Amino acid sequence: MNSLAQSLGDRFGSRLLTAPAATAQYAQSEGHHACQPPSLVAQPETVEEVQLLVKMAAQEKYAIVAYGAGTSLEGNVAVTATDTLCIDFGRMNRIVEVSPADLLCVVEPGVTREQLNTDIRATGLFFPVDPGANATLGGMISTRASGTTTVRYGSMRENILGLKVVTADGSLISTGTRARKSASGYDLTHLFTGAEGTLGLIVEASLRLHGQPEKILAATWNFGTAGGAVDTVIETIQSGVPIARMELLDEAAIRACNRQSSLGLPEQPMLFLEFHGSESSVSDQLELVRLIGEGHGGGRLQFATATEERNALWKARHQALWAAKAMVPGAVAWITDICVPISQLSNAIARAKAAIDASDLFAPILGHVGDGNFHVFFILRPDDAAAWDRARIINEAMIDHALSVGGTCTGEHGIGLGKRQAMQREHGAESVATMRLIKDALDPSGLFNPGKIFLD
Amino acid sequence: MNSLAQSLGDRFGSRLLTAPAATAQYAQSEGHHACQPPSLVAQPETVEEVQLLVKMAAQEKYAIVAYGAGTSLEGNVAVTATDTLCIDFGRMNRIVEVSPADLLCVVEPGVTREQLNTDIRATGLFFPVDPGANATLGGMISTRASGTTTVRYGSMRENILGLKVVTADGSLISTGTRARKSASGYDLTHLFTGAEGTLGLIVEASLRLHGQPEKILAATWNFGTAGGAVDTVIETIQSGVPIARMELLDEAAIRACNRQSSLGLPEQPMLFLEFHGSESSVSDQLELVRLIGEGHGGGRLQFATATEERNALWKARHQALWAAKAMVPGAVAWITDICVPISQLSNAIARAKAAIDASDLFAPILGHVGDGNFHVFFILRPDDAAAWDRARIINEAMIDHALSVGGTCTGEHGIGLGKRQAMQREHGAESVATMRLIKDALDPSGLFNPGKIFLD
Repeated sequence: MNSLAQSLGDRFGSRLLTAPAATAQYAQSEGHHACQPPSLVAQPETVEEVQLLVKMAAQEKYAIVAYGAGTSLEGNVAVTATDTLCIDFGRMNRIVEVSPADLLCVVEPGVTREQLNTDIRATGLFFPVDPGANATLGGMISTRASGTTTVRYGSMRENILGLKVVTADGSLISTGTRARKSASGYDLTHLFTGAEGTLGLIVEASLRLHGQPEKILAATWNFGTAGGAVDTVIETIQSGVPIARMELLDEAAIRACNRQSSLGLPEQPMLFLEFHGSESSVSDQLELVRLIGEGHGGGRLQFATATEERNALWKARHQALWAAKAMVPGAVAWITDICVPISQLSNAIARAKAAIDASDLFAPILGHVGDGNFHVFFILRPDDAAAWDRARIINEAMIDHALSVGGTCTGEHGIGLGKRQAMQREHGAESVATMRLIKDALDPSGLFNPGKIFLD
Repeated sequence: MNSLAQSLGDRFGSRLLTAPAATAQYAQSEGHHACQPPSLVAQPETVEEVQLLVKMAAQEKYAIVAYGAGTSLEGNVAVTATDTLCIDFGRMNRIVEVSPADLLCVVEPGVTREQLNTDIRATGLFFPVDPGANATLGGMISTRASGTTTVRYGSMRENILGLKVVTADGSLISTGTRARKSASGYDLTHLFTGAEGTLGLIVEASLRLHGQPEKILAATWNFGTAGGAVDTVIETIQSGVPIARMELLDEAAIRACNRQSSLGLPEQPMLFLEFHGSESSVSDQLELVRLIGEGHGGGRLQFATATEERNALWKARHQALWAAKAMVPGAVAWITDICVPISQLSNAIARAKAAIDASDLFAPILGHVGDGNFHVFFILRPDDAAAWDRARIINEAMIDHALSVGGTCTGEHGIGLGKRQAMQREHGAESVATMRLIKDALDPSGLFNPGKIFLD
């Protein structure tokens, strides 16, 4: 047994995993990237233990990869170095404080979004960011996650007040405050948000909470064409309607969801909508959106007003990935993630659909279209190299097109391993060099999550 | 004439200022910090000229201070080094693009917020961030400015999509995209936002625009006590009412505004409110806020529905600083800027009022109270050293109290020269050391705005 394992074992006991059967689960993710298991996994319970792990790993020249729920999609926590200590934040899952008076909570990084929302339900507040997966909040911060409600409530970027972070020398720093705004010094909160664990380890976060709306109205809405659905989205956003959710599922996605969740929906391009507000505001919003959609061939709006009905609908939406995979036995999914300015969305989706149709691949389209963000779920057999090549070509073309119209290669999944080359194209060499200066300044020995974000 | 002045003079002609009478105006600001004039002032018209200035100043070991409208309050653009090149962005004031379809615009840094809003009025869109002063957008980005509408529309932090920045080696980098969200790489946009020109020079910005609301209703509302007004604010925020403006003026501020602008308002603590939305949403919001305020001793709401009436009201609010100064001939203003979590606002304002009352200073209180942010305007004669000392003691006590309840020493004015010590107390040595690592990595020779943010 090596010396780091020995000394950590003395301190962490059964919370240090070394057996291949135990460490192997940390090589799993929901993405398509091949991962190797870490040499060691530690499960700290306190900030002080995290600081100790950083200092000891640095001393022994181990890399550190932080691990939450394993739901990332771009190899964001993949192990790339032979000597890697994986820090599993699963035991740091306490909700430290809930302050309804200040509409905020303080959580440890291993708290999941569902855990948080279950815990605070009785306060009348909720945490809105909803990427679908029941990710940990530490992971959601680190990938600057967003999801179905971002069109109204913002992404993680807009919902973090401050962080506590363990840096490369084992120091603990605080960023931000509990106030709603501040002009005090560099915005370290946003620097660590989306840094994918390459600059430090998030050990606590203060998050904004929102009041549960007086009225919630969910609906599904079928369209003759995806174009009609997308044009409805574009005009809704341009009209400034504060809609809470606006999701597109194309006919292939609906077919998969019908099969998995018995939704019985017409197998046509479909919008899943949700309106939040007072009775009168929801009714104002609905009438405006209905008018817009009727001009673009929208069918009959089907409402889900009861909480159970609504939950069933969103559960089906969230299970779309599994539903799509289940259509092709043994297949895995490769999920794309471009996000474009809203005026470009119609064209971007039309191009993607045309490329998929011409490819003979099974690839449903789903998206947080209110943000200009959508995903192609390429459903591929692992050994069908030709199909992977076709998917790769389509994805690269989608990214190039998104970049050419001012969009981004990743709306919400992050760079990880998979988007490193695309990130260079997106920001340009000088901008990436500036990021690199920051990485080298804050993590000079390359301790944290090596091989991610930057091409070396 | 020194060699930098010589070579810049050859290129910039009359756009290089060297005469003391010309450079002296760059030693003015609206703050109370003593400034010296820069040795040289250049007025570039293009990005390439800014790159050239950076390269030449670096070569000649001049410091660079970026200058917008000169409206900052904490010595944020004060000249501290003997050899300083001031870059006046006044000629880079083009609105490069307005895209109603994507609810965004692209501007040069010297565009002022009033210029932008006048220019885009016909599109039905507006840029919401309103610090009162007609600052340049470059300056507002650099201080992470906010203002009267931040309670609803966010501060600069929430309204910037991307930047172009000239870095210390004269490179031009791009940050962000035109998409509403992105998870691509480090968030350089937010790093340069609020960096006060210490990390690079902002030469272009893409900003989010918002639709002009269907209905705007402004009102003034007098209260028997400041406490009643503040409790009304706290409950309104806690209830999640999407109010667009919620400003407090205490009786001293109202007295000053009455005298300056003939408002004829009762000289009592007063809320200035504004509601944005559809007819029904505005009426919902108003009824809820009215109920809350009536429970806290609110008098009769006085509405300003006509555009001219409304504009007169907000103009008076924005002129409160001049109105307060005019109460004491020859006096200058020193403006405090704490921001606290909303639950702590009542206590913070009560403490400030008690300290002012006990001090015999003339010091109206005004604030963006919906954000938990308020200002004490200490109106002081320049030579009354004892009064300055009393103001200093009150300000330090306010800051210490704000920090003790999780607030910040500056809600919106930035650190500049004046808050450097307070920033250390706010973030702690380790966090400031992390900021310093970033400063040293991005500006290794200390070219940009020396002496600001950090205590050396």
